Amino acid sequence: MCKNFSSTISAYLAGFLDGDGSIYVRLKPNNTYKYGFQVAPYVVLFQSNQDRKNFEKLCSKIGFGILRERKDGILEYSINKAEELKFFLTSIKPFLILKRKQADLMLKILDKKGKVKNQNDFEKLAQLVDNFRELNYSKKRKIRTINARRD
Amino acid sequence: MCKNFSSTISAYLAGFLDGDGSIYVRLKPNNTYKYGFQVAPYVVLFQSNQDRKNFEKLCSKIGFGILRERKDGILEYSINKAEELKFFLTSIKPFLILKRKQADLMLKILDKKGKVKNQNDFEKLAQLVDNFRELNYSKKRKIRTINARRD
Repeated sequence: MCKNFSSTISAYLAGFLDGDGSIYVRLKPNNTYKYGFQVAPYVVLFQSNQDRKNFEKLCSKIGFGILRERKDGILEYSINKAEELKFFLTSIKPFLILKRKQADLMLKILDKKGKVKNQNDFEKLAQLVDNFRELNYSKKRKIRTINARRD
Repeated sequence: MCKNFSSTISAYLAGFLDGDGSIYVRLKPNNTYKYGFQVAPYVVLFQSNQDRKNFEKLCSKIGFGILRERKDGILEYSINKAEELKFFLTSIKPFLILKRKQADLMLKILDKKGKVKNQNDFEKLAQLVDNFRELNYSKKRKIRTINARRD
């Protein structure tokens, strides 16, 4: 599906992600999903819009993902399709220094996500998602009740 | 003097610098210098101090430079010796996407800096330093009078 990255492109992207990127998964309450939540994984690269042209050049080397401009003028390049995330993270992981644990956890979640068969499996997956908060040092830890499906 | 970087280390550092780093030169008023100003070049990599251990690991791959923690908890790894800057920038330049112009300008300044023979040369150098403001899109442009030496 995806064109292989050269080792220097992979290393560059690892450096950029370590410097100014984010790896995270959100559990979004959504009644149309079987277990009441959508598992939404993201890799995002950030940049100010002052050098949009070169940032677009950088993004074009990836070859997938979506570029959008936030209201505050920050450009966000996000990858959120499972297959693309797997390819991207597997390619850059050998070169990551700061976010290697996040990459491992994301790959584990993407793997488990495809294998959820029942509520118990889903709760285990949600536990893994919770681990991101610790890795990313979020200050606003939420207590969430997975079972509180609104239907 | 410096141990050569592998191509993937160079590419990683280029990505990190493009993502969360800065290349700039300051002209600091200083009466002990012949032309009234110190030309102070910097390459700085930034990171929050939440993952200091891995950031130190990253910095150790460079093998020179200084790590310090700002009062707001941000870690700054800065390189400011001319020979180290030349080595660092020459190594990573082929892989830079966003900050290649800044790297070129810094290398030009480092070259000229060693060749200043008179006030005229110094003013030309100061002009080059001013170009950084345009490249880095600083909003606080200062008007400076190079000749206003306080002695």
